[in-house]
Amino acid sequence: MIILGIDPGTAITGYGVIEKKGRGGAYVAHGCITTDKDILKEKRLLLLERGMMVLFKKYKPDVVAVESLYFFKNLKTALPVSEARGVILLTVAKHRVPLYEFTPPQVKMAITGYGKAEKKQMQKMVQLHLKLDSLPKPDDAADALAIALTCSSFLRS
Amino acid sequence: MIILGIDPGTAITGYGVIEKKGRGGAYVAHGCITTDKDILKEKRLLLLERGMMVLFKKYKPDVVAVESLYFFKNLKTALPVSEARGVILLTVAKHRVPLYEFTPPQVKMAITGYGKAEKKQMQKMVQLHLKLDSLPKPDDAADALAIALTCSSFLRS
Repeated sequence: MIILGIDPGTAITGYGVIEKKGRGGAYVAHGCITTDKDILKEKRLLLLERGMMVLFKKYKPDVVAVESLYFFKNLKTALPVSEARGVILLTVAKHRVPLYEFTPPQVKMAITGYGKAEKKQMQKMVQLHLKLDSLPKPDDAADALAIALTCSSFLRS
Repeated sequence: MIILGIDPGTAITGYGVIEKKGRGGAYVAHGCITTDKDILKEKRLLLLERGMMVLFKKYKPDVVAVESLYFFKNLKTALPVSEARGVILLTVAKHRVPLYEFTPPQVKMAITGYGKAEKKQMQKMVQLHLKLDSLPKPDDAADALAIALTCSSFLRS
């Protein structure tokens, strides 16, 4: 089972792909869909959709796990992130793939056993879980791998 | 010039279509795209996209005007509305049509001359502007007509 984890954003959407192994996973890929801030907002959403379509075609995920907003310091960022989430969820529906959503504390708890873990600690655990040679970069892609691992742990079996 | 006004929502997205006449407009159509609350969120976004595609095909708008969030009583509604907005903006980008966004006070100001006008007052003014026999219904479609009229007034010419 291939799990695609997504950390949504308009400027940078991180993705992480793993193959479910037990309640953990084997590393497949990670990276980012980025859009230039000088492009019109609606065109950025179009580029995001295209990037998602490429991921579905390339990795053929069986399930998709997306980070959901839980609490946010800045409302100005929560609204555009939600717009990006709308586009991402749309691509999931188009591929008729089950969707799972996890809040940041749920991801932290699943990966480190502590709901308020620091970013570095999370990345270290993702590196260990997936047997990577170095810390996964950038942050958004590392988060997306963590979301995919959380989904694997949640799905059990 | 055909203007499509949109009042976004997951459960109900209102639409209003006018033909620009000077700084006002002639009525073309109004209505709603509705999705059942028992359907999965991502599938509702898919139905919303399909509904938007039908509107573009039927009315061939030259510009689209969408209500933007300005201030909200309830954060729990602001996030799903933003997800719906993301899907709506995506369909605008796909049709390469100019997008305009207006906040509720901007719409109220344009239609009634008062940024805190009541809903009934707005609907009455929309009825008068568009020479309708009765108040436009439901509220979301009336709001969408008001957004289209605001766009016409904003575009001048």
